[in-house]
Amino acid sequence: MACTVTCIAPVNIAVIKYWGKKDEKLIIPLNDSLSGTLSMEQMHAKTTIMASPNFTKNCMWLNGKEESFGGNARLLSCLKEIQKRAQEDGTSKEILKWNIHVCSENNFPTAAGLASSAAGYACFVYALAKLYKVKGDVSQIARQGSGSACRSLEGGFVRWHMGNASNGSDSLATQVVPASHWPEMHVIILVVNDKKKKVSSTSGMQRSVETSELLKHRVAHCVPQRIAAIEKAIHNRDFPTFAEITMKDSNQFHAVALDTYPPAVYMNDVSHAIVDLIHCFNQVKGCTKVAYTFDAGPNACLYLLESAVAETMALVDYFFPSNNSGNTVQGLPVPPCNAKETVQAIEAVGMQKQDDGLLKYVIHTRIGEGAKELTDSGTHLLSASGLPLRLA
Amino acid sequence: MACTVTCIAPVNIAVIKYWGKKDEKLIIPLNDSLSGTLSMEQMHAKTTIMASPNFTKNCMWLNGKEESFGGNARLLSCLKEIQKRAQEDGTSKEILKWNIHVCSENNFPTAAGLASSAAGYACFVYALAKLYKVKGDVSQIARQGSGSACRSLEGGFVRWHMGNASNGSDSLATQVVPASHWPEMHVIILVVNDKKKKVSSTSGMQRSVETSELLKHRVAHCVPQRIAAIEKAIHNRDFPTFAEITMKDSNQFHAVALDTYPPAVYMNDVSHAIVDLIHCFNQVKGCTKVAYTFDAGPNACLYLLESAVAETMALVDYFFPSNNSGNTVQGLPVPPCNAKETVQAIEAVGMQKQDDGLLKYVIHTRIGEGAKELTDSGTHLLSASGLPLRLA
Repeated sequence: MACTVTCIAPVNIAVIKYWGKKDEKLIIPLNDSLSGTLSMEQMHAKTTIMASPNFTKNCMWLNGKEESFGGNARLLSCLKEIQKRAQEDGTSKEILKWNIHVCSENNFPTAAGLASSAAGYACFVYALAKLYKVKGDVSQIARQGSGSACRSLEGGFVRWHMGNASNGSDSLATQVVPASHWPEMHVIILVVNDKKKKVSSTSGMQRSVETSELLKHRVAHCVPQRIAAIEKAIHNRDFPTFAEITMKDSNQFHAVALDTYPPAVYMNDVSHAIVDLIHCFNQVKGCTKVAYTFDAGPNACLYLLESAVAETMALVDYFFPSNNSGNTVQGLPVPPCNAKETVQAIEAVGMQKQDDGLLKYVIHTRIGEGAKELTDSGTHLLSASGLPLRLA
Repeated sequence: MACTVTCIAPVNIAVIKYWGKKDEKLIIPLNDSLSGTLSMEQMHAKTTIMASPNFTKNCMWLNGKEESFGGNARLLSCLKEIQKRAQEDGTSKEILKWNIHVCSENNFPTAAGLASSAAGYACFVYALAKLYKVKGDVSQIARQGSGSACRSLEGGFVRWHMGNASNGSDSLATQVVPASHWPEMHVIILVVNDKKKKVSSTSGMQRSVETSELLKHRVAHCVPQRIAAIEKAIHNRDFPTFAEITMKDSNQFHAVALDTYPPAVYMNDVSHAIVDLIHCFNQVKGCTKVAYTFDAGPNACLYLLESAVAETMALVDYFFPSNNSGNTVQGLPVPPCNAKETVQAIEAVGMQKQDDGLLKYVIHTRIGEGAKELTDSGTHLLSASGLPLRLA
């Protein structure tokens, strides 16, 4: 009698950043943004949703811990919106009356500041759409869970259009190119050790909208040009242009955060040392090999072509050693590389080896596919009676 | 037969920052800036200039070390401009033919990133003007040595007007109010331990002009409003308004530096922790007690009223301990203060005690007078024969 679906959804990392809402409640952004979707082989959120007439209330478990469902306005709003669409699509009225159990897990550390809420909300909304057999775009619903979640439904490179409608109906995400368009595009995430208390991105961006003069200029003048230029670079597989725009936009987002009052500071000295290393590397190579981008936290996300992965990791291991040696790399294997000459050239332009242990670990991944349903019932996270198979 | 003058000139710390030149050679800025002049009792540059028909060439000693005179274009340009003015003013043609010996010292560490070049160039130009008996404004000449030097000629609060003339003739500094207008205004400088290689402010601002989109908006829209508002706050001795504009403008300057490509990063984790402390302090007090501002380096300059000095220093000593105790304070004495309650309130809003030894030392000073001549011949830095009395 119960219905169960299990889906997975990817993490996405913006190259043109989302920062600032036009509508706080509907989560309509002040500007378009654009991201790469990361392969789910390395990182994904996985969600099982079961609907049953026997459930006495809606329940939710996140990473094995029960969470309040009724107290989470964004969760409820996503559920309500999907159910509304289901009714319009003629879904059986029966199932829409049933309560649901939701069980969700990330296969990567939630606390690492790796945009886990985007993958989580994308997965939740995608799974609900499967459960209720909703057709068409659901990115405008995922957006209302966590803005950037709308970009995690599709693979490849994805653009979130701010839209014009005051109800947000045209603020949705569309695929720019599929992952197969640029299969050489890889991503290295450097997870930085950090103990600083953070300004949440929700409150940080709200404060920026209220106080940053520079944000207005960014939104009106800088982003529209950059979105057009980076889309073109992606279509042309023009890595140097893609990389330069990506780095400039990351810097500008953090500049706006700093122009906020009180300032919102997300990068730390280690983040800035990574920026220095990338600029030195590109400089000594005479061409742009790697781009960095930073979200609302100190971790670096490096976009680079597969051909640059081995040397980049050798440089990271040299300049940011762990136990005086290499870092722990999760994900895709990294080929060995002798980067001695490049190390010397980088030291010659003034970059110094950093203290030991500044990085926690490293993830090597690539651009991948969008959210999908897992049809093998062995993958469900809930038992037949609707309880989590694993608890924390 | 020789003529000798000795002058001292103060350091100034901008509250509306100068960042970006319209004319690189003439040093005409993209926007007006405004600074407080710091008391020369604590910090000053001191310069003796001697002109003699016996000198075979121009010579210069800086902090006891001989420097090239002929190879320093900015020094030569200041000398040439003052001599031109002297000719117009009818100064004896004789002295203008003589070579000069220049000996200059700072009574504070040059390497500390405390804008020593502004005080140095102001002192050099002021002393030359005295030597050649030049009348009228010489700030437009000091400006050509080091832009912000023009603001070190006058005391109190000083505004550098960008001007409109393409030859820079109206790009000069004028006093907003004398030091006596707001005698309660004190300044605490926190000198931060730092080992990072720096982007020089000259090359940083040049790169910002070339690459920062946000700088254009700052220059056109933000600074004009802020200059007007802070002038008014200074006239009204309205500390909270003065402080808020000061902090916002410091943040915006560093935001623009970060929006530069490659980014120019001057503040470090310690600087940002100081920012956090000041915002926490103001928050728990329910009113703005202290303002921070940062130049092109990690050191914090705190503007505050005399009544807030004791508690602020107690907080600095608690949250940024040195040898698990207080910091070395140079300059004006700091009264003792039991800040236990404020410390607890600040800890309650999330600020943590920092690691030991992050600050090098602290300077306590106040707003003071502009450059002046020392008439006692016992103060000269050059002997009767024109050689330095002290060498490094």
